Amino acid sequence: MSADPVTPPPAPAFRRQGDLLLLSGQVGVDENWRPVGGSFADEARAAFANVRRVLAEAGAQPDQLLKVTAYLADLEDWAGYNEVWLEEFPGRRPARTTIGARLVPPFRVELDVVAWLGATP
Amino acid sequence: MSADPVTPPPAPAFRRQGDLLLLSGQVGVDENWRPVGGSFADEARAAFANVRRVLAEAGAQPDQLLKVTAYLADLEDWAGYNEVWLEEFPGRRPARTTIGARLVPPFRVELDVVAWLGATP
Amino acid sequence: MSADPVTPPPAPAFRRQGDLLLLSGQVGVDENWRPVGGSFADEARAAFANVRRVLAEAGAQPDQLLKVTAYLADLEDWAGYNEVWLEEFPGRRPARTTIGARLVPPFRVELDVVAWLGATP
Repeated sequence: MSADPVTPPPAPAFRRQGDLLLLSGQVGVDENWRPVGGSFADEARAAFANVRRVLAEAGAQPDQLLKVTAYLADLEDWAGYNEVWLEEFPGRRPARTTIGARLVPPFRVELDVVAWLGATP
Repeated sequence: MSADPVTPPPAPAFRRQGDLLLLSGQVGVDENWRPVGGSFADEARAAFANVRRVLAEAGAQPDQLLKVTAYLADLEDWAGYNEVWLEEFPGRRPARTTIGARLVPPFRVELDVVAWLGATP
Repeated sequence: MSADPVTPPPAPAFRRQGDLLLLSGQVGVDENWRPVGGSFADEARAAFANVRRVLAEAGAQPDQLLKVTAYLADLEDWAGYNEVWLEEFPGRRPARTTIGARLVPPFRVELDVVAWLGATP
């Protein structure tokens, strides 16, 4: 069963200037802005898939993702978030911050990311 | 009727290093740090006016504003925030993230912005 | 009396690319990830000590710290946070944003920082 689409925020998925790439907050929706629903892990995986899609669209390599700030609607999902995090980053990991915040329903996680497109040192 | 001034945070309105410009969180106060009060939209417009004033002071062009993170004290103001957002950015828009957070009273919105002062690609 | 260690987040303390340095959220723990406990000020000082330790590890000078976002579990600690802030930055200060958010217990404050390692203009 598909959920109703949510209204996309009136903002681009990313802005890049020079080597700095900043994304709009990514949530667990499909390409039609329908919340993917399912378990917390399903939703978090969909949010990370959107992050990767936007990074690719902006011309960034996965290793150029420097920081992930995760907003969790329920801090009880911290352990679940860690599981998805470890799946998503089997190699070199970004820095991260994870805090509890209120999110527009029905979302349980929103991801804020910063990338740098210059050469890897 | 004017509200009493709030205590300004002991921090500069911005710091710039190289092309990176980071602002302190901007709220809806006048030049004497009096909360502007009024409707949510009035307060949000005043917060954006402060963002623009600080960007100008730092030598940034409006289009160099890459990202706006908005903290809302009440997520019910999400639609009201979108209205002000569309007024503020009739042209090219920054990336954005909007979450619910607790704010020092009496503020309902606080804006965190990142700008990049290098040449537009 | 020492608290039990908390589980460190599975992420590096920092990532640097080019001149941009982003840290993982820093909290008031000792080198074995034991919460330092004590007063709010004790905890905030320990979190700032961790920020400074990571900045040094990453090769940054204290003045290259451009922005500090503080997440407070209880906004009543705003005044206490300001006291520690003034101790920590007797000279030039970073820009800052301070909001209330839910944090993984037992933490009352988490610090998110951005530094820029290029030459000071």
